[in-house]
Amino acid sequence: MRHLLSTRDLTRDAAVNILDVAEDMAEVSTREVKKLPALRSKTVVNLFFEDSTRTRISFEAAAKRLSADVINFSAKGSSVSKGESLKDTAQTLAAIGADAVVVRHGASGAPQTLATSGWIDAGIVNAGDGTHEHPTQALLDAFTIRRRLHGAASRGRDLDGVTVTIVGDVLHSRVARSNVWLLTTLGAQVRLVAPPTLLPVGVSSWPATVSYDLDSSLEQATDVVMMLRVQSERMHAAFFPNAREYSRWWGLDDARLAQLGEGSIVMHPGPMNRGFEISSGAADSKASTVLEQVSNGVSVRMAVLYLLLSGEREGLA
Amino acid sequence: MRHLLSTRDLTRDAAVNILDVAEDMAEVSTREVKKLPALRSKTVVNLFFEDSTRTRISFEAAAKRLSADVINFSAKGSSVSKGESLKDTAQTLAAIGADAVVVRHGASGAPQTLATSGWIDAGIVNAGDGTHEHPTQALLDAFTIRRRLHGAASRGRDLDGVTVTIVGDVLHSRVARSNVWLLTTLGAQVRLVAPPTLLPVGVSSWPATVSYDLDSSLEQATDVVMMLRVQSERMHAAFFPNAREYSRWWGLDDARLAQLGEGSIVMHPGPMNRGFEISSGAADSKASTVLEQVSNGVSVRMAVLYLLLSGEREGLA
Amino acid sequence: MRHLLSTRDLTRDAAVNILDVAEDMAEVSTREVKKLPALRSKTVVNLFFEDSTRTRISFEAAAKRLSADVINFSAKGSSVSKGESLKDTAQTLAAIGADAVVVRHGASGAPQTLATSGWIDAGIVNAGDGTHEHPTQALLDAFTIRRRLHGAASRGRDLDGVTVTIVGDVLHSRVARSNVWLLTTLGAQVRLVAPPTLLPVGVSSWPATVSYDLDSSLEQATDVVMMLRVQSERMHAAFFPNAREYSRWWGLDDARLAQLGEGSIVMHPGPMNRGFEISSGAADSKASTVLEQVSNGVSVRMAVLYLLLSGEREGLA
Repeated sequence: MRHLLSTRDLTRDAAVNILDVAEDMAEVSTREVKKLPALRSKTVVNLFFEDSTRTRISFEAAAKRLSADVINFSAKGSSVSKGESLKDTAQTLAAIGADAVVVRHGASGAPQTLATSGWIDAGIVNAGDGTHEHPTQALLDAFTIRRRLHGAASRGRDLDGVTVTIVGDVLHSRVARSNVWLLTTLGAQVRLVAPPTLLPVGVSSWPATVSYDLDSSLEQATDVVMMLRVQSERMHAAFFPNAREYSRWWGLDDARLAQLGEGSIVMHPGPMNRGFEISSGAADSKASTVLEQVSNGVSVRMAVLYLLLSGEREGLA
Repeated sequence: MRHLLSTRDLTRDAAVNILDVAEDMAEVSTREVKKLPALRSKTVVNLFFEDSTRTRISFEAAAKRLSADVINFSAKGSSVSKGESLKDTAQTLAAIGADAVVVRHGASGAPQTLATSGWIDAGIVNAGDGTHEHPTQALLDAFTIRRRLHGAASRGRDLDGVTVTIVGDVLHSRVARSNVWLLTTLGAQVRLVAPPTLLPVGVSSWPATVSYDLDSSLEQATDVVMMLRVQSERMHAAFFPNAREYSRWWGLDDARLAQLGEGSIVMHPGPMNRGFEISSGAADSKASTVLEQVSNGVSVRMAVLYLLLSGEREGLA
Repeated sequence: MRHLLSTRDLTRDAAVNILDVAEDMAEVSTREVKKLPALRSKTVVNLFFEDSTRTRISFEAAAKRLSADVINFSAKGSSVSKGESLKDTAQTLAAIGADAVVVRHGASGAPQTLATSGWIDAGIVNAGDGTHEHPTQALLDAFTIRRRLHGAASRGRDLDGVTVTIVGDVLHSRVARSNVWLLTTLGAQVRLVAPPTLLPVGVSSWPATVSYDLDSSLEQATDVVMMLRVQSERMHAAFFPNAREYSRWWGLDDARLAQLGEGSIVMHPGPMNRGFEISSGAADSKASTVLEQVSNGVSVRMAVLYLLLSGEREGLA
């Protein structure tokens, strides 16, 4: 694997391979000595143009568990604020010897630009770009679903026949996009449920069914309900009247939780707005995988960094 | 030791044990190779909801000298500012595999909440919570006193019979609180000297005598004078007229320094307001232990992290 | 070498030695395992009173490639903002065991103060102080020039007979100052070209010729054209009318680039204001060494930290 820019480009085999390597990494994390020497002397730069402490520390923990050196580069207060271009930043990171750059950027396509520009030879990992993609989030979601459904027999399997219902602000969600591509590539059926105002133009061409009514959607069986974070900071007040209104129609509250089938799981990428798109009852229920998702995030990011930097990099897509 | 939340809970034996392990750590720090492999593959998270570079780098240096991986998590600009709860933050740190969390928080009791909530299994170290406690500061103060008084013969000893005079803004000082509990547990006699407006309600129930007059207090012999930082950022202007006034009545100036007995020592937790609660003459005098305190802070924090994470964790309180 | 405070103090032999050690470090950086154990258990503190992500990560990468522990101390939001003095900060770093302190400060002379005050025993590296000096920048510039001119035969050589034209805002540039001293010590001839308003008082006593006209200057052959960053944040609007005007008279545009001799090189310390003091054509031309400068920066900083901390510290100036 050369870069990880989107899940849309991943083949089924490449995706399953990442999940399988993540299984190995999850095992390492349970050992007494949780560190592997695999990436010793490699430098991973966390290049964050937007704040995201959770994603940054997940990548930082993953890289350190593989013995890489980590350099955090927050674009705030840096040369970027003196007007330095993405090109100059990239070339600087290349010149100091970055082997991988984990990039979070407000503009859709920025990681793609880094990867294809020739400015830097490092492996690029998209850690969220605008409203475009957040591929490691989708990979950890797929990993979490596979583990819940197949447990110790997960290795080598895809998500054939699994039904996933994604609920909420699809319009602004890179998590939703990355999941739609990845989960369908892995054989899952994806349903989107959202208010019409929070669906993107062109959603009809996505490999997913669309509904505007959460309650009627939940009448159909689903293996997974994935709640999206309401990104009120990105949202115009006119889209919906208020939090109570949103919660009433689109939130996973205790009543809706009770309606779900026995083995159904509840997912959320975090950070949650408790009482808004998800009730505390749902967030902390047995069905919830919220914490497994965070924990699996480290394993998946270890796998991605490992595949990018350990010499197997050429072997894959 | 499972957590370090306060000094109030520490038994004499537990406290002396920490000080003794800190002696070992201080020896390591004098070696050519100052690093121990003790905490290799352990992850220490510095979770700071309030800025405190000095305390953060002391813990960071301590953890790195024990070969732990360190992840700094400043709550500013993080998900916390997007409204994430302490619970979600704690669970996130648990899920990424934090073995110890060093927490500084503006709210008294936050570390206790982390330790007892079940949200996270990691060892919790209180690095200052509101006006409640700052236990590693008190431990490094006790360590500094013991070393000054007993030198190479310190191991195993407590502070029986030692007199400590704590001067200044007791009301807002978690350092004062942690020292009152710890020093008295170790056998010292503690005197508080402060303006009536800077004493907390209920101070009469503390195991310490209280006085309002620094000069008359210093007429009595004392082994230790511990000046507190005036936290003007926390203090209402009405409490005292101005800096000169405060300094005149409550500051350790050169004249008061000259009155102290031969072997008396002068302590300050830093950062000092030179010319305010302490004169430069006093701060830089032979009696001053200010720099030893900082240096001993690393040894004491190494000891605490070691006791929490090295497997001896179950053996103690 | 005890400290690196300025290039003005460096002898020719000391400077050539640093460049030679940097050659060794550059070789290490091309290996499969790019890390040296040389500074294991040493602690390098990046003490930055001004933001400079590029310089900070260059030193951080250099220190980590030598296996040192790195602690980043940004003075913003630290005790410094609570009024802590440079003295107390220095003593704190001494007490936590810093072996080297890399300091960036807005006040000229601050690193000198740290080095000579006795507050701290660590090796001090000036990473830019006010408008005074930025010695590692000049060293990496000299290293870059030597490599371009002499390639594999660089070792042991100085810059005898080399002509360097430094263009732009000399007044505010510590880079210009450090280069004037270092390059002339190494035998180069330095020409300064700047508007009269952007030249410092006393420039006539510098070991360099001064001109106000870029075009006529470039009529004379020069091995190196070094463009300075226009630090508009430091500059009063009255100094020059606007960017277009500045660019027209003092910018290295494509036409001026075409006039340069065959082997001439174009340097810039970064971050560049493309289209202002340098055109993109010039910045990205074959003559440009901008990226080599960044890359060489890591090697030179490895050399400096190595010479300060590896035990050879006493052997040199």
